[in-house]
Amino acid sequence: MDILEFTPEPEQYAYTFGGAAPTHRIRPGTLLRLWSDDAFGGRLRTITDLPSSHIDMRFSNPQTGPFYVEGAEPGDTLVLHFVDLTPARSWGASATIPFFGGLTSTDRTATLQAPLPERTWIYEVDSARKTLSFQAQGSDFGLELPIEPMLGTVGVAPAAGEVRTSLVPDKFGGNMDTPQIRPGATCYLGVNVEGALFSVGDGHYRQGEGESCGTAVEGAMNSTILVELVKGGAPTWPRIEDDGHLMVVGSSRPLEDAWRAGQVDMVGWLGDLFGLDTLDAYQLLSQISEVPLANVVDTNYSVVTKVAKSLLPATQVYGGIHRHLRDLAATVSGS
Amino acid sequence: MDILEFTPEPEQYAYTFGGAAPTHRIRPGTLLRLWSDDAFGGRLRTITDLPSSHIDMRFSNPQTGPFYVEGAEPGDTLVLHFVDLTPARSWGASATIPFFGGLTSTDRTATLQAPLPERTWIYEVDSARKTLSFQAQGSDFGLELPIEPMLGTVGVAPAAGEVRTSLVPDKFGGNMDTPQIRPGATCYLGVNVEGALFSVGDGHYRQGEGESCGTAVEGAMNSTILVELVKGGAPTWPRIEDDGHLMVVGSSRPLEDAWRAGQVDMVGWLGDLFGLDTLDAYQLLSQISEVPLANVVDTNYSVVTKVAKSLLPATQVYGGIHRHLRDLAATVSGS
Amino acid sequence: MDILEFTPEPEQYAYTFGGAAPTHRIRPGTLLRLWSDDAFGGRLRTITDLPSSHIDMRFSNPQTGPFYVEGAEPGDTLVLHFVDLTPARSWGASATIPFFGGLTSTDRTATLQAPLPERTWIYEVDSARKTLSFQAQGSDFGLELPIEPMLGTVGVAPAAGEVRTSLVPDKFGGNMDTPQIRPGATCYLGVNVEGALFSVGDGHYRQGEGESCGTAVEGAMNSTILVELVKGGAPTWPRIEDDGHLMVVGSSRPLEDAWRAGQVDMVGWLGDLFGLDTLDAYQLLSQISEVPLANVVDTNYSVVTKVAKSLLPATQVYGGIHRHLRDLAATVSGS
Amino acid sequence: MDILEFTPEPEQYAYTFGGAAPTHRIRPGTLLRLWSDDAFGGRLRTITDLPSSHIDMRFSNPQTGPFYVEGAEPGDTLVLHFVDLTPARSWGASATIPFFGGLTSTDRTATLQAPLPERTWIYEVDSARKTLSFQAQGSDFGLELPIEPMLGTVGVAPAAGEVRTSLVPDKFGGNMDTPQIRPGATCYLGVNVEGALFSVGDGHYRQGEGESCGTAVEGAMNSTILVELVKGGAPTWPRIEDDGHLMVVGSSRPLEDAWRAGQVDMVGWLGDLFGLDTLDAYQLLSQISEVPLANVVDTNYSVVTKVAKSLLPATQVYGGIHRHLRDLAATVSGS
Repeated sequence: MDILEFTPEPEQYAYTFGGAAPTHRIRPGTLLRLWSDDAFGGRLRTITDLPSSHIDMRFSNPQTGPFYVEGAEPGDTLVLHFVDLTPARSWGASATIPFFGGLTSTDRTATLQAPLPERTWIYEVDSARKTLSFQAQGSDFGLELPIEPMLGTVGVAPAAGEVRTSLVPDKFGGNMDTPQIRPGATCYLGVNVEGALFSVGDGHYRQGEGESCGTAVEGAMNSTILVELVKGGAPTWPRIEDDGHLMVVGSSRPLEDAWRAGQVDMVGWLGDLFGLDTLDAYQLLSQISEVPLANVVDTNYSVVTKVAKSLLPATQVYGGIHRHLRDLAATVSGS
Repeated sequence: MDILEFTPEPEQYAYTFGGAAPTHRIRPGTLLRLWSDDAFGGRLRTITDLPSSHIDMRFSNPQTGPFYVEGAEPGDTLVLHFVDLTPARSWGASATIPFFGGLTSTDRTATLQAPLPERTWIYEVDSARKTLSFQAQGSDFGLELPIEPMLGTVGVAPAAGEVRTSLVPDKFGGNMDTPQIRPGATCYLGVNVEGALFSVGDGHYRQGEGESCGTAVEGAMNSTILVELVKGGAPTWPRIEDDGHLMVVGSSRPLEDAWRAGQVDMVGWLGDLFGLDTLDAYQLLSQISEVPLANVVDTNYSVVTKVAKSLLPATQVYGGIHRHLRDLAATVSGS
Repeated sequence: MDILEFTPEPEQYAYTFGGAAPTHRIRPGTLLRLWSDDAFGGRLRTITDLPSSHIDMRFSNPQTGPFYVEGAEPGDTLVLHFVDLTPARSWGASATIPFFGGLTSTDRTATLQAPLPERTWIYEVDSARKTLSFQAQGSDFGLELPIEPMLGTVGVAPAAGEVRTSLVPDKFGGNMDTPQIRPGATCYLGVNVEGALFSVGDGHYRQGEGESCGTAVEGAMNSTILVELVKGGAPTWPRIEDDGHLMVVGSSRPLEDAWRAGQVDMVGWLGDLFGLDTLDAYQLLSQISEVPLANVVDTNYSVVTKVAKSLLPATQVYGGIHRHLRDLAATVSGS
Repeated sequence: MDILEFTPEPEQYAYTFGGAAPTHRIRPGTLLRLWSDDAFGGRLRTITDLPSSHIDMRFSNPQTGPFYVEGAEPGDTLVLHFVDLTPARSWGASATIPFFGGLTSTDRTATLQAPLPERTWIYEVDSARKTLSFQAQGSDFGLELPIEPMLGTVGVAPAAGEVRTSLVPDKFGGNMDTPQIRPGATCYLGVNVEGALFSVGDGHYRQGEGESCGTAVEGAMNSTILVELVKGGAPTWPRIEDDGHLMVVGSSRPLEDAWRAGQVDMVGWLGDLFGLDTLDAYQLLSQISEVPLANVVDTNYSVVTKVAKSLLPATQVYGGIHRHLRDLAATVSGS
């Protein structure tokens, strides 16, 4: 097994999907041990570090990569299995950013109101207890919350020669901000360009569904990832599989369109897997769908459509590669 | 304890919130044992019963009630605790209806495309195994799914003299179509008129989040409900509490607005409960929110914002009435 | 010709479509001379009269009517020709209202931001010059604007037994807030209940497209209206005809759905008028459609789809009744 | 005056904003005489040329350019004055494209319905009469429509290193598809990269507001354009000025967000021009705004906010450059 360890220097960070030269060429089957900086570039370290003075949104959400996968061609399916995600710092940061987030007006949902005040929260990581400390600032309320590490951003170079900011999810993946990208999950992404050129970043030590204020508990992350390639079979929207569920992530606006995109893809997927016609698959999905929101804050919103494997007949997707990668993952150490 | 058993005759069905004379006057503390017809009025009984020939959308989703609650005044909080929901028929029905549903154009998301074909599915109930049988029609695929009974519709008379169809959810509740209205849940509704005038209906033997095709496994239901009243404290949007979670249901369009409404209400609720200022409550919610969709098919869409009690300090809402009703429920038989 | 003059007393105001007893029964062919109060009920008279202390949103937008039209049955088309609209006061009022309007968060597009400040503007009417005076309050800027009288609200009782606030437009018309309802226009509304039960109100001395701040130059209005009835032919959405254009008004959320509804109806209308199949009518509309926004502030937004008669072959709609009413209007005095 | 005439070869077409090497370097003050191909690349020539067999959406909407403007730096304002637009072919084409357009489901507003049928329409140009012939295909209906030439696409390279398809409008301009980009109009675009790197294309011989079916009467165009540069003053969203109006074009989803973005920018613009505070400018805009839709078909929708100069005190924007360019244009021949 090829193993690649990589901690990028800041000048190696990528801020776009597409448009960045690959940092490495890797072969399918490679195990990656990657360090990624947090969405703030590590610049929010205390509660007095406010976004407007410390963050330039054009250079937010740095990505580790992109990686050129040998043999990957347009129409193929890139397979990323997340073996392990471990916080790489002893603290995570979150913040309200002027005119950014779900419960404020933004540059697009524009109003004439004043922005919400800025505030930065620092969450201390207790690695032993696997908790994060939330400390209110307007009162002395404090709380410990479980660490649930995930990656907010994973994607490939877009189609049609586009280069897209790492802040916006779309068909190529990107900043989907779904808690479903966690250890044990396998993500399937349609390849648009030779080499796929995927990158990852935006570690979250935990995040609520919707990521209401626009930022999770953002933290540098050590990620252990197995990379595989399936020839052909490129999904329209990113798909995720874990031991319990099959998922599709749609990203668009308004929010119902993000939902529709993922649902329609899942109808097709169920149809393919079980030999159902469109109406039967639609009916079945209507009764078994789980739909946790991912983000309602980025320029495209993201919605996950999930179905529980336990409700369905046994089946294999993408040749059973998830099971294979799970087994393989058990043979490698995490972080 | 007052106990009222009621199975309405078809001519007693209500099709609106507001505008219908109460079928009964009850006192807070009453235990209701209600039968409600399904959203199709029981008219889809075989797979050859198609909606266009059997259903009049103006007389769909019949409600049992409304009930006049003595002492209920505008600004009060109606409390409905769902002790038990048990299927009242041996089969449930679902259907695709022309230009109705989430993955089709509708009278509002209007396009020039032909409608999807109509189809009716009948799910046989196996009471012993607590399962429903799904049978595909385009193939011989069949599946057993767990029964998970819920009520799609619960609401009070609207404010400002409005009378609203039982098909559309809003601040008064109504056709929210969330699986969270299930046995063990307590629903809090703001009272708009004297007597509250609440009704329930739209039993679902199970439903996926989003109710994609527009109909769940629709079935007549026997509901055991404890009714209470809290003076004052009317929530802006319907709230739900169960043993594990606090919830708010927002209903609007586009879908992000349904989400925003529920989230803003939850921010205020968390602030009130734990003495958090707005920004701290927003931050906390951002990291702990769960957001399962309810429906993306009605004229208003519904989204649930949930927070797990297990992540929060112990607290009591509405004077601990949910715990009280849970205890009381344990003393009464279900169906 | 029957002529009815009516100035309602405040206790006769209607605040809903449906649910109000008719003030009068009239025959088709009647000429109405109506006075209607402004949307604020005349309570904003100086710039120190602020909405939060002077306005109760539950009793806003008072309607004159409803009128029971003899012979009107569900499925018929109510025809209202606006002969003349003349300001009935020497001043109009506009205001910003907390959490109401297009460029602020609202109860539905909810955010955590503080509301915009309240402010009331009074526009003096110069009847001779037919102008309104705008006077800024944060500076000494002043401007004269032409009076362009219109009615924001015209509608019938809704279908399915609903009663809807006069603040929200829908298929029954209501608070569409389009400048197209002006002298010389004929409005076609589908009848849902016996007698149609139409009412009018919400006079605007002028309004921009979209009604951004949520209020136009609101003013009491003297309206001269010819009432006719066409048996059958009920349009799905309100239609308007004037000498230059055919129009449909769609009302929904999000804004694209309001647009879609009106466009689809216009495709059908063009198809009917000129014998075009759906694709040809779609194509033609794509090249000739005018789409001025009406309102982006009510719970449903409204969008007008217009086509210029000058681009189309000569045709008659609804039996040429608009031409007939225009001719008839020339024989009666305005106000 | 520098004059540049340019007719690109197909291999010189650009399909993105950003990411393409400039075809020319020009100085401010240059007069461009450009030929641009139509959005279909000229491949729809008869009604039997259907999009699915003749069009690759990844290589649609070819642009002429980009042009590197000497001295243009981020934060500057690129000024493009459209002196003349003249059809460069004797026919224009329009078409319905599967799952593309405003009155069909799309890849984002996804449904399970079958696509609308494809159809191509060819409009013959009568240069003498300045008309286009529309010929229905489902009947023998025919019509002559006035030619009203416009450019659907004008934009600069995006910010933050993005490369965006020429099909999607945003803050950088792009495929706004508004009839306001016509002879006599001046467009102001914020510069994001050195040289601005603007391009134009997507000539329409006429287009309805909204561009319902997704395509206008698409035609190759000869464009005469004066290029100027204003140091600083970059607008957030594209602005347009003509002899009668000031305009802002917002582009986003849902449609209300496109509207909000343009309205908020116009409130600020009016405030700057006339010394109005935010509330006064909001109030004034509410009473004078015109809002013609541009497109409701692209991945971002576009909405124009217009105000008539005739309603406002005399003022100059961008130093009166529009007047200057109009005068200069009168000295150069059109096509």
